[in-house]
Amino acid sequence: MKNKPKNNHSKQWRSTLSRIIFKADTRGGKLFDEVLIVCIISSVIVVMLDSVNHIHSNYGQTLYILEWIFTILFTIEYVLRIISVDRPLRYVRSFFGIIDLLAILPTYFSLFFPGTQVFIVIRLLRVLRIFRILKLVKYISEAQVLTQALRASARKIAVFLFTVLTLVIIMGSLMYMIEGEESGFTTIPRSIYWAIVTLTTVGYGDISPQTGLGQFLAAIIMICGYGIIAVPTGIVTVELSQLKQRQEGIKKCPSCQAGEYDPNARYCKFCGTKLPV
Amino acid sequence: MKNKPKNNHSKQWRSTLSRIIFKADTRGGKLFDEVLIVCIISSVIVVMLDSVNHIHSNYGQTLYILEWIFTILFTIEYVLRIISVDRPLRYVRSFFGIIDLLAILPTYFSLFFPGTQVFIVIRLLRVLRIFRILKLVKYISEAQVLTQALRASARKIAVFLFTVLTLVIIMGSLMYMIEGEESGFTTIPRSIYWAIVTLTTVGYGDISPQTGLGQFLAAIIMICGYGIIAVPTGIVTVELSQLKQRQEGIKKCPSCQAGEYDPNARYCKFCGTKLPV
Amino acid sequence: MKNKPKNNHSKQWRSTLSRIIFKADTRGGKLFDEVLIVCIISSVIVVMLDSVNHIHSNYGQTLYILEWIFTILFTIEYVLRIISVDRPLRYVRSFFGIIDLLAILPTYFSLFFPGTQVFIVIRLLRVLRIFRILKLVKYISEAQVLTQALRASARKIAVFLFTVLTLVIIMGSLMYMIEGEESGFTTIPRSIYWAIVTLTTVGYGDISPQTGLGQFLAAIIMICGYGIIAVPTGIVTVELSQLKQRQEGIKKCPSCQAGEYDPNARYCKFCGTKLPV
Amino acid sequence: MKNKPKNNHSKQWRSTLSRIIFKADTRGGKLFDEVLIVCIISSVIVVMLDSVNHIHSNYGQTLYILEWIFTILFTIEYVLRIISVDRPLRYVRSFFGIIDLLAILPTYFSLFFPGTQVFIVIRLLRVLRIFRILKLVKYISEAQVLTQALRASARKIAVFLFTVLTLVIIMGSLMYMIEGEESGFTTIPRSIYWAIVTLTTVGYGDISPQTGLGQFLAAIIMICGYGIIAVPTGIVTVELSQLKQRQEGIKKCPSCQAGEYDPNARYCKFCGTKLPV
Repeated sequence: MKNKPKNNHSKQWRSTLSRIIFKADTRGGKLFDEVLIVCIISSVIVVMLDSVNHIHSNYGQTLYILEWIFTILFTIEYVLRIISVDRPLRYVRSFFGIIDLLAILPTYFSLFFPGTQVFIVIRLLRVLRIFRILKLVKYISEAQVLTQALRASARKIAVFLFTVLTLVIIMGSLMYMIEGEESGFTTIPRSIYWAIVTLTTVGYGDISPQTGLGQFLAAIIMICGYGIIAVPTGIVTVELSQLKQRQEGIKKCPSCQAGEYDPNARYCKFCGTKLPV
Repeated sequence: MKNKPKNNHSKQWRSTLSRIIFKADTRGGKLFDEVLIVCIISSVIVVMLDSVNHIHSNYGQTLYILEWIFTILFTIEYVLRIISVDRPLRYVRSFFGIIDLLAILPTYFSLFFPGTQVFIVIRLLRVLRIFRILKLVKYISEAQVLTQALRASARKIAVFLFTVLTLVIIMGSLMYMIEGEESGFTTIPRSIYWAIVTLTTVGYGDISPQTGLGQFLAAIIMICGYGIIAVPTGIVTVELSQLKQRQEGIKKCPSCQAGEYDPNARYCKFCGTKLPV
Repeated sequence: MKNKPKNNHSKQWRSTLSRIIFKADTRGGKLFDEVLIVCIISSVIVVMLDSVNHIHSNYGQTLYILEWIFTILFTIEYVLRIISVDRPLRYVRSFFGIIDLLAILPTYFSLFFPGTQVFIVIRLLRVLRIFRILKLVKYISEAQVLTQALRASARKIAVFLFTVLTLVIIMGSLMYMIEGEESGFTTIPRSIYWAIVTLTTVGYGDISPQTGLGQFLAAIIMICGYGIIAVPTGIVTVELSQLKQRQEGIKKCPSCQAGEYDPNARYCKFCGTKLPV
Repeated sequence: MKNKPKNNHSKQWRSTLSRIIFKADTRGGKLFDEVLIVCIISSVIVVMLDSVNHIHSNYGQTLYILEWIFTILFTIEYVLRIISVDRPLRYVRSFFGIIDLLAILPTYFSLFFPGTQVFIVIRLLRVLRIFRILKLVKYISEAQVLTQALRASARKIAVFLFTVLTLVIIMGSLMYMIEGEESGFTTIPRSIYWAIVTLTTVGYGDISPQTGLGQFLAAIIMICGYGIIAVPTGIVTVELSQLKQRQEGIKKCPSCQAGEYDPNARYCKFCGTKLPV
C-alpha cells in the first residue's frame, strides 16, 4: 500500500479483483482458478496437437483460432494481474510474472517471425503456470515437505552425483578404448553418454558393447548402477522420515508454551514444569 | 435380513449357502474358494492361449468348449450368489458384482457378435475376481497396510507425479526442437512419450537422440529420473514405517504414565512399578 | 554317534576328517574351504569358456581334461563327505548333498550321452556349492538378517506381486487389442510379456507400441512401474530397520539376565530391579 | 618437520606454500583451488573433444597446444607439491600423488609413443584430482557419512551381490539352453551378460528371448530384478538412518541419567532437573 492513495471505490474494486486472481479463499477466486487451469491445460494440448502433421493439415485452422483465443484470454489475465497488484513492477519481474508473459508473447511474435520452432517450447512453459494455482491450495504443504527434504539432502546428493559423474567419465573412456568405432563408441563424449544410459539402467541399446571385455565392463557398470541407486533413495528417505517425526511431535507445554515435547517426557524440557499425561 | 421372512427351512439353507460362497471359515467355504480360484486361473489361461495363432488352429475347438464350461460354471455361481445374498440388488451393483457379471457376459454376447476383440479383454477382467477370495483370507491385513500407506502418501505422490509430468512436457518439447524428425522426434506428443520412456529408465531405444546436444539433454533427463525415484520410495517407506510402529502399539504405565512400554515388559522401565499383563 | 561304535582310532580319524570338511574352525578346515572355493570357481569358468565356439575349437581338449580333473576331485570330496559324516543317508538327501552329487554326475553321464546341453546347466549348479562354504564363515549372520527381513515381509511382497501380475494381465490384453499384430503384439501372452518388460523398466524395445493410444497407455504403465517400485523397497527397508534395532538393543539386566533393555530404561522391565547407568 | 632444519626464511616460505597448495583456509589457498578446478575440468574437456573426429580435424592444433599448456601447469604444480611437503616420498607414493603424476606423464610419453589410445584414459583420470579439492571443503563431512554408511553395509551388500551373481549364472545358462544361437544366446558368458542386462533392468534389447519359454523365464528374471533392488536400498537406508541418529547425539541427564536429551532441552524431561548448557 505504498502507492499514493486513490479514491476509495477504486481501491476496494482492486482489492476484490486481487483477491479473486491471487487467492483461492473466495467463491470467485476458486472459480477463477478452475477456469484458468482448464484454459492452461487446453492451450497446452492445442500446442501439442498442432505438432502432429496429420492433425495440423486437417484441423490447423481450428487450432490456430483456439491458440489466439487462449492468448487473448491470457493477455487479459496478465493485464488484470498488473492492474490489481499493488507493486506491478515487482510482479512483472517475479518468476511467475515472467512465465505469464512468456505464455502470451510467442503468439504475438509469431505474426512477425512465422514458423519459428522455439516459440513452441516457450508456449509449453505455460504448463508451469499450474504450479501457481497449486501453490494456493492444499497441495502446498506436501510440496513443501518434499522440497525441504530435497534441500536438506542437497549436499549429500551433490556428492553422490559428482561421484557418478566421475565414474561415467572413467568408464566411458575405458569403453571408448576397448570397444572402438565398430560398436558405436565413436567418441569419448558418446561413450560417456553410453555409460550414463547404462548406469541409470535406461539402456536404449542404440550403442551396446560387442566384445567380451566390453560386455564384462558393461556388466560391472550395470551392477554398480543397480546398487548405488540405494544411495539417493536412502538419503531422501532418512530426511523425509525426520521431517515427518518433527511434524508429528508438536505438543505445547501448558506452562511456557515453548513448543513440542516428546511423547515420553514427564517434565517440560524448557521450563521444568511437570507435564500433564 | 430385511426381506420378508420365508419359511425357516429356506432361510437356513440360504444362510448355509451364503456362508459357503461369501466366507472362508467353514470347510465347504474353503473348498468352494479353492475350486473357484482354479477355475478362474484356468479360464484366464484358456483365453490367453486362444490368442496364440498356432494353438488356436490346433486346439481352438477344445478351448471353445472349455470356455463354455467355465462360463456356465460362473453363471451358476453368479445365480447362487444372487439367491443366497440378502440384498441381491446391492450385490449386483457392487464392484465385485459387476466383475462377476462381466466374467460371463462376453461369452454369451460372442454368439451374436462373433470375433469382437474387446470381449477378450473383458473376459480377462476375471482375474480381478481372485482379489475377492484373497479378501477373505489372511492376506487381507497385509494388503490393508499397503493400501493405507499408499493412501496416506497419495497427496505427496500426486505432487511428485505432477512435477514429473511438467518435466517431461518441457523436456519432450525441447528435444522435439533440438532433434527434429530424423531421429524419430516427429511430434511433441511423441517426444513427450520418449521423455517418459527415458525418465522412468525404461529406455526402449525405438526413439533415441542422435545429435550431441540431444544426447547431453537426454543424459540430464536420465540422471534426473535415476535420482528422483528416491522421492516416491522415501514417501512410501516413511508411511509404512509409521504404520508399523502404530500397529506394534503404545501402552502407558498406570503409575507414572511415562509413555509406551514394550509388549514383553513386566515392570515399567521408568518407575519400576509392576505392570498389568 | 548313533552308528554302532567302531574302534577308537577310526572314530577319531573320522571326527578329524569331518571337522576339516564340514567346519572352518581349524587351520585344515580353512585351507580345505579355500581350495574348494578355488576349484568350484575354476570349474565353473571352465564350463562357461567351453561354450564359446572359438575357445572350444582351440582349447577344447585342455578344458575337457580340466573338467575331468575337477570332477574327480569333487568325486573324492563327495566320497569323503559320505564317509566322515555320521548319518550318510541324511547328508545324501540334504539340499547340499544333492547339489554335491549334481556337480559330478553330468560329467560321468556325458560319457554315455555326449552333447546333451542340459548337462551344462546342471554343471553350473556347482556355483551353489559356494553358499555352503559361506555358511561356515562370517557372512552367515549378514545373510541371516537379509533372509529374516525377506521372510518377515514375504506376505506383503506376495500381495504386491499378485497386484503387479493382475495389472500386467489387464494392461497386456488391452495393448493386444489396441496395437494389434503390426507392432509385435501378436498374442496375449506376448503382450503380457511386453507389459512386464515395461513395468519393470527393463524396456528391451523388441516390442514397442506404435499407435498414439498405445504409447499413451504404455506411458501410464511406465509411470506406474516407476512409482510402485517404492512399495517393495519400503517393505524391506522397514523390516531391516526393525531387525537392526532389535539386534542393537540387546543389553542384559544384572539381576535377572532376562535379555535386552532399552537405552532409556531405569528399571528392568522383567524383574523391576534398578538398572546401572 | 623431521627433516634437518633449514634456514628460517626457507622454512617459512615452504610452510606458506604448503598451506596454499594443500589447505583451503587462506585467501591464496582458496584461489589456488579454484584455479586448479577450472584447469582440471578444462583439460578433461580438451581430451574429450579431441576424440571427436570433426573437432580433431578442425581444432586439433589448438587442442594440442592447450593440452601442453595444462600439462606444463600440472607439472609445475606437481613439482611445487613435492617441494613444499615435508615428506616428499610419502606424497609421491600416496593415492593422490600417483594420480597427480598420471595426470602429466601421458603427454610427455606421447612424444615417444604417438597415437597410443591408453594415454587418453590415463589423462582422464585427472578428473579424480577434483576429489582432492573437495576433500578440503565443506562436502567432506557429507561424503564421510555416505562412505561410512556404505562401509557399514559392505558385508550385507557383498552377500546380496553374491546371490545376484549366482542367480545370473544359473539363469543365464538356462537361457543358453532354452533359446540357443538364433536369438543371440550364442555362449554362456554372453547369456550371463544378457541375464545381468535384464536383472538390473537395463534392457538393451540387443539380445532378447524369442521363444515362449524363454520369454517366460525372462519375465521371472525381470520381476526378480525389479523386486530385489529393495534389498540394497533397504540396507543403505537403515545404515544412513542410524548414522544420522548418532550424529544428532546422545547426552545424559546428570541427575537421573535417564538417557538422551534433545539439544534444545533446558530441563530433563524425566526428572525435571535443570540441565547444563
